[in-house]
Amino acid sequence: MPTSTEWLTGLDLVDHHCHGVVESDLDRAEFEDLITESDVPAPPGTTHFDTQLGLSLRAHCPPVLDLPAFASPEDYLDRRTELGAYEVNQRLLRASGITDYVLETGYRPGDILSPAQMGERGAARSAEVVRLEFLAEQVAAEHEPADFLEAFRARLDHALTTAVGVKSVAAYRGGFELDPTPPTGEEVTRAVERWLADSPPGRSLRLTDPVVIRAGWWEAINRSVPVQLHVGYGDPHVDLHRTNPLLLTDLFRKARGSGARFLLLHCYPFHREAGYLAHVFEHIYCDVGLAVNYTGAQSAQVIAESLELTPFHKALFSSDAFGASELFHLGAVLFRRGLGEALDRWAAADGWPVAEQERIARLVCSENARRVYG
Amino acid sequence: MPTSTEWLTGLDLVDHHCHGVVESDLDRAEFEDLITESDVPAPPGTTHFDTQLGLSLRAHCPPVLDLPAFASPEDYLDRRTELGAYEVNQRLLRASGITDYVLETGYRPGDILSPAQMGERGAARSAEVVRLEFLAEQVAAEHEPADFLEAFRARLDHALTTAVGVKSVAAYRGGFELDPTPPTGEEVTRAVERWLADSPPGRSLRLTDPVVIRAGWWEAINRSVPVQLHVGYGDPHVDLHRTNPLLLTDLFRKARGSGARFLLLHCYPFHREAGYLAHVFEHIYCDVGLAVNYTGAQSAQVIAESLELTPFHKALFSSDAFGASELFHLGAVLFRRGLGEALDRWAAADGWPVAEQERIARLVCSENARRVYG
Amino acid sequence: MPTSTEWLTGLDLVDHHCHGVVESDLDRAEFEDLITESDVPAPPGTTHFDTQLGLSLRAHCPPVLDLPAFASPEDYLDRRTELGAYEVNQRLLRASGITDYVLETGYRPGDILSPAQMGERGAARSAEVVRLEFLAEQVAAEHEPADFLEAFRARLDHALTTAVGVKSVAAYRGGFELDPTPPTGEEVTRAVERWLADSPPGRSLRLTDPVVIRAGWWEAINRSVPVQLHVGYGDPHVDLHRTNPLLLTDLFRKARGSGARFLLLHCYPFHREAGYLAHVFEHIYCDVGLAVNYTGAQSAQVIAESLELTPFHKALFSSDAFGASELFHLGAVLFRRGLGEALDRWAAADGWPVAEQERIARLVCSENARRVYG
Repeated sequence: MPTSTEWLTGLDLVDHHCHGVVESDLDRAEFEDLITESDVPAPPGTTHFDTQLGLSLRAHCPPVLDLPAFASPEDYLDRRTELGAYEVNQRLLRASGITDYVLETGYRPGDILSPAQMGERGAARSAEVVRLEFLAEQVAAEHEPADFLEAFRARLDHALTTAVGVKSVAAYRGGFELDPTPPTGEEVTRAVERWLADSPPGRSLRLTDPVVIRAGWWEAINRSVPVQLHVGYGDPHVDLHRTNPLLLTDLFRKARGSGARFLLLHCYPFHREAGYLAHVFEHIYCDVGLAVNYTGAQSAQVIAESLELTPFHKALFSSDAFGASELFHLGAVLFRRGLGEALDRWAAADGWPVAEQERIARLVCSENARRVYG
Repeated sequence: MPTSTEWLTGLDLVDHHCHGVVESDLDRAEFEDLITESDVPAPPGTTHFDTQLGLSLRAHCPPVLDLPAFASPEDYLDRRTELGAYEVNQRLLRASGITDYVLETGYRPGDILSPAQMGERGAARSAEVVRLEFLAEQVAAEHEPADFLEAFRARLDHALTTAVGVKSVAAYRGGFELDPTPPTGEEVTRAVERWLADSPPGRSLRLTDPVVIRAGWWEAINRSVPVQLHVGYGDPHVDLHRTNPLLLTDLFRKARGSGARFLLLHCYPFHREAGYLAHVFEHIYCDVGLAVNYTGAQSAQVIAESLELTPFHKALFSSDAFGASELFHLGAVLFRRGLGEALDRWAAADGWPVAEQERIARLVCSENARRVYG
Repeated sequence: MPTSTEWLTGLDLVDHHCHGVVESDLDRAEFEDLITESDVPAPPGTTHFDTQLGLSLRAHCPPVLDLPAFASPEDYLDRRTELGAYEVNQRLLRASGITDYVLETGYRPGDILSPAQMGERGAARSAEVVRLEFLAEQVAAEHEPADFLEAFRARLDHALTTAVGVKSVAAYRGGFELDPTPPTGEEVTRAVERWLADSPPGRSLRLTDPVVIRAGWWEAINRSVPVQLHVGYGDPHVDLHRTNPLLLTDLFRKARGSGARFLLLHCYPFHREAGYLAHVFEHIYCDVGLAVNYTGAQSAQVIAESLELTPFHKALFSSDAFGASELFHLGAVLFRRGLGEALDRWAAADGWPVAEQERIARLVCSENARRVYG
């Protein structure tokens, strides 16, 4: 029986949640900042390379840049500079074998490549999802509170003429312990007034108001679009225990029948909880996105756990890569390997025919995403 | 050294929490409804067969009906109809090798076989546990609120002349964030009054009142009987985060010394938390029931995790099968396999003698249940 | 390629959180009490030996006392008595290969060996951490409430002239849902007044007041010392759900830049949550201490999971052994094996060079602890 690794690399792979890469030269500190979810350098005498992600990167990325595996970080970064960011990005993105990017453009958009540029570098198709909170911040900066909701709706409608869905980072803006109902227009206006009044003048607006966040959710739900939700693991601004996706159970119940679908991103360490939601609710999908790269050589277990309750027609792949093109390559290598190991193990235990394994792998690698995003 | 699979199938297997099967012909939609915890069909273009449970079913059940493994769902259901539900049930129940059923009869009792019928179909012993909330709903429909508690006690005493224990579905009726103390009689009366007043006329009563639920718990505790508690994974009516068994810690403390024993059912994804409780409290037992079938080829990991802290004299087997006889066969096959793989792995690491492995397997497969239920 | 087991036993091993052993003869009941986190005997007809810890003990400890592996508990305890506690402790402690003990002396100090005695028995270095709540209880018993804070500071400063850090058992004294800010001196005085007024006369004081607990934390933080926190798994006095380390996220944020480092102990079943904290916060470290011994043959999975997000320069070893010298030997054997299995598996998957494996193992086994405790 051929092992899954022989045929998994040949399958289309849709990265349904990722960000653009940086295309400037990076010094050691800047590069280390892109390979950690911490917001500070590693303690004196240590390095962010000494993590699962760091070791995986050193195993898989140097050969793409013509270095031996486990080249030292110094040699790797020297080679990166020597080749230049354009060449490095092109090599790593293409090595990943990712065929489609669904890019979220609401985080540091000025620093990263656009969807069109990403498609060119990676020789892949690209599509865009828009960040609800980013739209809301733009609209609030430009309109009176009383006009906010109407202007937000227009902005969202306009964005959705090209974007294939939306993303919410409510997880980073107070978490999920929110009233699951849609706020009234009057409540939104008053909330925007408070938000603006409480914001320090001269700085970019940052949305943390729960009423305005809920308004964004419900505008998306009412448009029957895919709604990506950051869930679980992220940087130190997350209150991780407030991002348990189970806290959204009532929201999901109220959104049944709306036509909206929710895509739970990352989910670690709540990926089993996310699997429950994807199992019982027809409009919930999930991945273990960011957690695959960050658990590295250990990611196969996380991927297998995420496929315990999640129906095979509800699981997706994403890298959540941002900034460093290494994260696309690693995400793809580790995901294919973890999925392949799981399929090999399950096939060995229960005699799953290769055709069934391939069918399930195609669902997870590309077909579920295409069905959801259209 | 003989591997565990050679001797595990010969051991008695007590299914300490299950339900009767349906014995009518089932069309595709009806059958799919029995192999998911979702309450709706899979989204267009997908099927509930594309889950861990679905693949396990296709691996293990067709041969029992004289079809090759991985027969298509269509062929399988055709064969099921051809043989007829009686023959299918008899074959699958007997193939499971389960020697004792402890059946809970409080869920859709009109649709499923009785304990006596189940025993006949499966050539096994059968016993019954009664659902506290179901008893309370019957009693409330027939008595004045002021008479509720006395009538409930009489009904429970009568049920316990034959039943070997009780079951609570408080997890489905608001969860475990309840006052752990017993309510007074006066509080119960007032609660029943409110419950009846708030219930829509002409419909069956549905108990969600926390005072009445607590009254049921304490009546059972005061009778020193086994109390099964649904914990964790279930259908979309569960608020999963409200069913963490740790929320019952104070109840378990207060019930120490009562003679009551608590059997935590399913527990996924809180099976490690349940293991902690079974480890530190002398009157707590647990299983991973429903989660074994629903995690399918991946269930061995879940079973092994459930045996991290749970003492070997506190772990139990259950299938939580309802409706489809396939779920009994799968539950037994997967549980034996997962337990066997764990024992083989632990024996390889630490040289566990076969006699010790067998002794532990007998505890888990039958002896713990017999000690608890008597 | 040499497997890790060939070189891991040669590495220094710092047990950064453990307690002294008992050096009196132990009868069966006393010994069983030391190998469980339960506070009562196992139910009639069962034994605390029938647990993962019990089986691991029977696999690894009898040979150190010249018995065959899996000697019966009776034979093992007879041999223990025959050799005498001094000899047994010396053999088991030295067999562990632990080179350094960091001993916490605030739990039943009268029953166990002192750090100096432990160092002698184990032919190892020893250091001490002091329990904040124990210091507070001593100070409160000896001073007026108005003098408490000043006296506590003096006692702590004195203790830190020899101790290398502090420990908090807030997990056992109400959990982590505390205001993360330092209390004022006036608040502390009033809290001590309440505490003393509410304490039964003639009994030892037991600190559960959240204000006084927070005062202890902040006095330690202000001294920039290592702060060990019991997290997760423990005995039945823990409300496990109140010990999720994520509940401390705001405390950790407020303590950034203080110079204090937090060492999260045990963490099971929240070890993935602890790994997140260790990943994103520069001053958080963690281990799976107590959970290694108690998950026994299954501990390799727990250890691997704890190394998913935890940077390799943030993970530590501890046994949390108390009372029985077996727990030191088992803790060391199981930790080395689990770490070795994980490294072997990751090396097989990603070609980690032996030099990298050894470097990472040295970080985890000793160097991280030495960097933190100085």
